[in-house]
Amino acid sequence: MSTAKRLSAPVPPGGMIGILGGGQLGRMLALAAARLGLKAHVFSPERDAPAFQVAAACSHAAFDDKAALAKFAQACDVVTFEFENVPSETVDHIAASKPVYPSAATLRITQDRFAEKSFVAALGLKTSPFAKIDTREEVYAAFERISGPAVLKTRRMGYDGKGQAKVCTAEEAMRAFETFDSAPCILEGFVDFACEASVVASRAADGSFAAYDPPENIHEHHILRRSIVPSRLDAGQIDEAKAIAGKIAGALDYVGVLAVELFVTRNGALLVNETAPRVHNSGHWTLEACVTSQFEQHIRAVAGWPLGDPSRHCDAVMENIIGAEAAEWRAFAARDGALHLYGKSEIRPGRKMGHFTRLLPRGGAR
Amino acid sequence: MSTAKRLSAPVPPGGMIGILGGGQLGRMLALAAARLGLKAHVFSPERDAPAFQVAAACSHAAFDDKAALAKFAQACDVVTFEFENVPSETVDHIAASKPVYPSAATLRITQDRFAEKSFVAALGLKTSPFAKIDTREEVYAAFERISGPAVLKTRRMGYDGKGQAKVCTAEEAMRAFETFDSAPCILEGFVDFACEASVVASRAADGSFAAYDPPENIHEHHILRRSIVPSRLDAGQIDEAKAIAGKIAGALDYVGVLAVELFVTRNGALLVNETAPRVHNSGHWTLEACVTSQFEQHIRAVAGWPLGDPSRHCDAVMENIIGAEAAEWRAFAARDGALHLYGKSEIRPGRKMGHFTRLLPRGGAR
Repeated sequence: MSTAKRLSAPVPPGGMIGILGGGQLGRMLALAAARLGLKAHVFSPERDAPAFQVAAACSHAAFDDKAALAKFAQACDVVTFEFENVPSETVDHIAASKPVYPSAATLRITQDRFAEKSFVAALGLKTSPFAKIDTREEVYAAFERISGPAVLKTRRMGYDGKGQAKVCTAEEAMRAFETFDSAPCILEGFVDFACEASVVASRAADGSFAAYDPPENIHEHHILRRSIVPSRLDAGQIDEAKAIAGKIAGALDYVGVLAVELFVTRNGALLVNETAPRVHNSGHWTLEACVTSQFEQHIRAVAGWPLGDPSRHCDAVMENIIGAEAAEWRAFAARDGALHLYGKSEIRPGRKMGHFTRLLPRGGAR
Repeated sequence: MSTAKRLSAPVPPGGMIGILGGGQLGRMLALAAARLGLKAHVFSPERDAPAFQVAAACSHAAFDDKAALAKFAQACDVVTFEFENVPSETVDHIAASKPVYPSAATLRITQDRFAEKSFVAALGLKTSPFAKIDTREEVYAAFERISGPAVLKTRRMGYDGKGQAKVCTAEEAMRAFETFDSAPCILEGFVDFACEASVVASRAADGSFAAYDPPENIHEHHILRRSIVPSRLDAGQIDEAKAIAGKIAGALDYVGVLAVELFVTRNGALLVNETAPRVHNSGHWTLEACVTSQFEQHIRAVAGWPLGDPSRHCDAVMENIIGAEAAEWRAFAARDGALHLYGKSEIRPGRKMGHFTRLLPRGGAR
C-alpha cells in the first residue's frame, strides 16, 4: 500500500508493540518483546485470550471495531499480527496511522491461496500444479488440468487442514466444492512427497535476511505433530530452501518472520506448499536451540532492530501437545526438555495446548 | 513457622503464582511462569514496577497494607518473593492463609547477616571469621577477635555493597559503625580470595535437589559485572560447592531457588560469603545455557512441580548492563548473544538495566 506508514526509527526499549491476535503465537511474541524491554499491547476478540496474561496492555474488542482499533493504534509504536487471517480491512485501518508489519499488501496475497501460489510460481519457484475454481463449471476443467489425485482447498481462511479435501475423481471434487458452499477454491495436484519441511526466516526493512535451519515436519490429522532439526535435507537442499524463503521475502518487501512450507519430492525437488506471513509452529524449537528465537526475531524485525543470530547450537525435536494430551502436564513436566503451555483454559480436541522441545547435542537428533 | 500453610498438591496450569516484588527478578519469574501456563500476580509498592508489564494481575500497594496483602493472597495459589528484604511480617501475614516459599523462617535467618553466618557455621561449613556488633563497646572487641583487615556490614537490608565498609583499624571500624547510625552490624574478616563463585541451586518440598554449575563472578564497585561458566573451579571444588548449597538448603527445609556466594581462597578452600533465598543475578546465564532456567526452576519448586534438568549445554558469559550502559541498547542488539532489558523507564547510576549473555560451545568460555 502506498499510503502505509513506515517506521522511521527503531522502537526504543519501553516502546509498545501492538499484536493483533491473542493466541499462543501472540503470547510468545509478547514474551519475546518483554525480553528486549519492549511492551506488548494485545488486541483480541477473545475474552480469555492467552496473550492477555503476559501483555502490558490489552484490548478486548472485535476486529471490525474501528473505535477500539483507533485507540489501540494510538497506543502502539508499531503493529504486527499473530495470524494471517486477521481481516485485511483491520490492517488497512491501522496502517493508515501506524506502521504495520508484515504489510497489508502481503496479507492480501497470503490470505488467498490462489494469489499466493500464483505469486510464488511467478517468481520461478516450483509448486504442485494448481488451478482456481470459482464456479461449478470450473471444477471439471480444473480436475482435468491437474489430472490425478488432488486436494481441493478453499482459497481463504483455511488452517490445520480445515477447508481441505483430498479428491481422486472429478465427482469427488464437485462434492467437496459443494461441501465448501461453492466458496472460491483452488485445486492442487496431490504431491506424494518424501517428507515435509519448512523454512522459518526473517527479513528486516533494510533487506537483511536470516533463515533458521529448515526442520522436517510430521503432520497427523493435518495438524503439526513434530518438527525435527536437522531435517533429512542435504546441504544443497538446505541452501535451496533458505534461498526460496529469501526470494519470497524479497519479492514481498517483507518485514518480519515468515514461514515457507515445503514438500520434498522423492526425487529431491523442493515444492512450495504455502507461505505463512508470521511466526510458525514449526519454528518453536528456536526458543531453546537458538540464541534468537523466531519470536524475538520477529519483534526485532518489526521494531526496526537488527536481526539476531539464527544459528543453532543444539539439535531439537519439538512435539505439539494437542487437546487432551495437555491433561498429562505432570508427565511432560517430569521429562527432560522444555515444556511450554499456552495458558488456554479449555481443552478441546485438536486444540494446540502447548509444546515440548527436547534438545540434543548437535548431530544427536538423527 | 508451625502455622505456615504448605502446598497440598501441585499448582495446575492456569494457577496463580504470587510474586512479592516487581523488579527484574520478579519480571523474569513471571515470564518463566507463563512458559509453564501459570499466571503471575505481582505485588509491588513501585507504581512502575517492571514485572507489572508481564503479569496477569498486579497489586500496587505497600508491603504493610494488610488489606491489599489479604486480597493478593486470596487471588494466589502459592506466593513467593523476588528479594530477601521483603518484610518478614509481610510474609507472615500471607503465610497464615496461603503457602509461601521460601518460608518466613528462612527469611528470618537470611535477613540477618549474623544469624545467617551463624547458621552456616553451625552446619560445619567454612566462612570468614565474623563477630556481631550491637554496641560501640563491641566494636573494639570484635576487631581484636577478627584481627587484621575486615569488612563492617549492617546486619540487615544490605545489597550491592550498600551498608558495607572495609576497615583496617579499630578506629576505622568505629567510624564506619557510626556512619551506619550504630545499626546492628557484623564484622567479617577480609578474605583475600583467588576468585568469587556462586552456586545457584533449587530444592523441592520433597527434598529433591538440583544445582547448576557454579559460575565465577567478577564484581566492580560491589555490583556483579560478569558471570562466567565454567568457572576456574576444578571438578572436586564444583562438587563441594554444590554440596554446600545442598547442605544449606536441606537444613532450611528450603523450597525454591537459592544462591550461595562463595569466596575461593588462594589455597582452594570454599568459604560461604552469603546466601540469597531467591533467584540470583549470577544465574541469569541459565536462561540460554540450560534447558531449565533458574527462573523456571524456582517456579517449578514453589508450584510443587518436579525440578527441571539443570545441566548446561553451552558455556556462557553473562555481563550486566548497568546504568548509562543501557543507552547503548542498539550496540548490544547488534552483538551476537542474548540481550535482556528489564523494562525500567529510568536510567540511574548503578541500576541494573539489563544483561547480555554470550553462548559458547562447551569448552569455549575459557
